[in-house]
Amino acid sequence: MAHTSGAMSPPARAGAPADAQDAEELLVAARAAVDPELHRAIGSLPAAMRRIALHHFGWEGTSFPEPDQSAPGVSPPAAPPAQPADPAGPLGPAVRNSSSGKAIRPALVFAAVRALGGRTAAAARAAAAVELVHNFTLLHDDVMDRDTTRRHRPTAWTVFGTPDAILAGDALQALAQRLLAEDPHPAAPVAAARLATCVVELCEGQQADTAMERRGPEDVTLEECLAMAEAKTGALLGCACALGGLYAGAADEDVAALDAFGREAGLAFQLIDDVIGIWGDPRRTGKPAGADLMARKKSLPVVAALTSGTPASAELAELYRVPAIHATADLERTVQAVERAGGRDWAQAHAADRMARAVQHLSRAVPEPAAAGGLLALAEFVTRRSA
Amino acid sequence: MAHTSGAMSPPARAGAPADAQDAEELLVAARAAVDPELHRAIGSLPAAMRRIALHHFGWEGTSFPEPDQSAPGVSPPAAPPAQPADPAGPLGPAVRNSSSGKAIRPALVFAAVRALGGRTAAAARAAAAVELVHNFTLLHDDVMDRDTTRRHRPTAWTVFGTPDAILAGDALQALAQRLLAEDPHPAAPVAAARLATCVVELCEGQQADTAMERRGPEDVTLEECLAMAEAKTGALLGCACALGGLYAGAADEDVAALDAFGREAGLAFQLIDDVIGIWGDPRRTGKPAGADLMARKKSLPVVAALTSGTPASAELAELYRVPAIHATADLERTVQAVERAGGRDWAQAHAADRMARAVQHLSRAVPEPAAAGGLLALAEFVTRRSA
Repeated sequence: MAHTSGAMSPPARAGAPADAQDAEELLVAARAAVDPELHRAIGSLPAAMRRIALHHFGWEGTSFPEPDQSAPGVSPPAAPPAQPADPAGPLGPAVRNSSSGKAIRPALVFAAVRALGGRTAAAARAAAAVELVHNFTLLHDDVMDRDTTRRHRPTAWTVFGTPDAILAGDALQALAQRLLAEDPHPAAPVAAARLATCVVELCEGQQADTAMERRGPEDVTLEECLAMAEAKTGALLGCACALGGLYAGAADEDVAALDAFGREAGLAFQLIDDVIGIWGDPRRTGKPAGADLMARKKSLPVVAALTSGTPASAELAELYRVPAIHATADLERTVQAVERAGGRDWAQAHAADRMARAVQHLSRAVPEPAAAGGLLALAEFVTRRSA
Repeated sequence: MAHTSGAMSPPARAGAPADAQDAEELLVAARAAVDPELHRAIGSLPAAMRRIALHHFGWEGTSFPEPDQSAPGVSPPAAPPAQPADPAGPLGPAVRNSSSGKAIRPALVFAAVRALGGRTAAAARAAAAVELVHNFTLLHDDVMDRDTTRRHRPTAWTVFGTPDAILAGDALQALAQRLLAEDPHPAAPVAAARLATCVVELCEGQQADTAMERRGPEDVTLEECLAMAEAKTGALLGCACALGGLYAGAADEDVAALDAFGREAGLAFQLIDDVIGIWGDPRRTGKPAGADLMARKKSLPVVAALTSGTPASAELAELYRVPAIHATADLERTVQAVERAGGRDWAQAHAADRMARAVQHLSRAVPEPAAAGGLLALAEFVTRRSA
C-alpha cells in the first residue's frame, strides 16, 4: 500500500465545512492514492495494450518494467510499488490532473469509506477498479460515438485504430475485476458483483444513448433522457459510493442510500456537464466548443428545450433536422435557441433539485454533517464548476 | 443447481476408453449443465442487451421473465431455475447444439473437475463464466474482423449495428465476472483473477492477429503466428482446464499442468480449425468456403505455406498481394498453392505434435488414464473433426 489514510485529507480538516478547497484536496489525494494501483495494473498489460492505455491516461512518459512473459496464464508479478515519497507519481501533479482527468470516482470511494468510519487505505484497489471501469467505458464510448478528442488529446481509436481501442477497453474491464478478485478485503467479492452489475447498467445507458441519437429531434422524451443519463453516468458514481460503504462494513440500507446519493449527484453532474458542453470554455472542457450541438447530440438541456413547447423549441427542432455535417454555420443560432427555450435554466434548476435529493439520501446513511463533509464537498464541487 | 454430477456422463462409462461417443456425450451434458446458468445470466440483462445476446446464442425463441428494474444498482433477482426435468432446456438439444456452438470450454471445465476428483455440479457457474467470456470475445472479434456470418447466422453487428454489438460483448464480460463474484465456492476468487488475466491474453492475441493482417504476406513469421494462436485460442482452453482444477482443489502445479494441457490442445484445435476453414464443408463450418483465404487472412496453414521456401510459397505470396475484394476469382488457385506449399500437411502434423505435448502435460496432472479419459476424449474430439 503506497499511501496511508492520512493522505486522504489532513486530519485537522476532517470536520471542516465542505468547500471547493476541500474537494480539490480530496481529488488530489485520491489521485495520489489510486495512481500506484493503476500504474501497477496497466504496467502488467502486454506491450501493445499498455501503449494504448498509457495514451488514454496521458501517461506516455511513464516507464514500466516489462511484465514477465515466462509464465503464461499466470498473473505477472506486481510491478514495484510507486514511491510513497513521491505522492505525485512519476509525472507532476499538474500534468496528471489535466491528462488523466479528475479522480472523481476514486475520491467518492474514499470519501464514502471515511464517512462510514472505515480505513481508506484498504479501499485503494476498489477505487482503482472503479476508475478502470470508467476508463474502459470512455475508450468504448469514443469508438461508438466517433469522438475524436478527449482530455485535450486525440482519442485512442483515432491514434491506434478502432480494433485496438476496443481491445484496450476490454483489457481495462478485465484489470478492474482482477484487482477486486485479488483483493483480500472481505467486501471484495460483493464489491466485484456490484461493479459487474454496474457495468451492465453503463452498457444499457450507452445503448439507450446511441439509440436516441438515431431518432428524430421531437421523438425523445425528457423522462427517457434522464433515465439514460442515470444509467450512463449516475450508476457508476452511485457504485463508487456504494463500494466505499461496503469497504467500511456499512449495513445494506446505508450502502443503498450511498448508491442513491451518488446516482442523484451523478445526474446533477451530467446536467452541469451538458451545460458546460454548450456554454463552457473549450480550454477547460478539453473538447471543441459546441461539439455536442454540432453533432446534434440530444443532451439533457437540448431535450428539455425541445420539449418545452415554446416557439424557440420549434426553431431548435428545425435546426436539429439539419445533419451534423452541415451544422457548423448554425452553431450560434442553435446555442441561442436552446437558451431561449429554457434549456439552460431548466438544466441548472434540475441539477440543484437532484443535489437536494442527493443530500437527503446522504443524510440517511451518514447523519452527522461532519462525517458527510467529504462526500458533500465532492458532490457540490462537480456540480458547481463554472459554465 | 439444475443438474447433478451424474448428468456429466453415465457413471458406468467413467473408466471407458476415450472415444468420440464419449466426447459427444460430454459436450451434450456440459451444454445441459451450463445452459441454465447462461439463461439466468442473460435473462438478467436489460431488454436491448438481452435481445443481442439471444441472437448471438441463437436463443431468440427463449422467453425470460423481465428483470426487476425497481432496485437500480442491485443485482436483479435470479430468474427461476430451469426445469431439472428437462436437461435440454427450453430448446431441443439439436437446435441448441447448432445455434449456440458446441460447449467445448464448459466441457473442459467439468472434465478437469472430474479428472481431479471434484464435484462437477459445484463448477457450473465457473463453466458458464468461461463460456460467457468466449462469447464476449466472439462478439467483439466479429466487429473488428467485419465477419458477417457465425454459426450459420448473420453476426450481431450486421443485425444490431457495431455499437450495440460492442456493448453486448462488454455486458457478457461483466456477467462472466459477476457469476464468479457471486459464487460461494472457495476457489471462485482465484478463478476470477485467472479468468481476468486470461481475458487480457485473449485481447493480446486478437491485437496481434489484427496487426498481422495489416502486414505483407512475407512479413509474418510462423513463430509469431503460433504465439498469436496460443494467446487467442489456447489461453481460454487452458484457463477452462485450470478453473476445473481450481474447483477440484488441485495443487498449484497440477493447475499449471492442466492449463498447459488446454493450451496445447487449443493450439491443435486452432490448427485443425484453420485447415477446416480452407478445405472444410461450409455446411459444417457455418461459414462460406474459403472465406479466410478470400479475406487474405494469415491463418496458420497459410503462414506455414508462405514460409516454406517452396516455389508454391512464392506463388502464394504473389496471390496474397491481390487485395481481398478481388480475391474470389483466385480462390481455387490459392487453395492449391497452400496445399502444394505444404500448408495442409504441416498443419496436420503440427496439430498431432501439439496433441502429444498436451497428453504429456495431462499425464503430470492426472497420472491415471481412467481419470484423464474425459479430458483426452475432448481434446481428441476437437482435433479429429473431418476436414
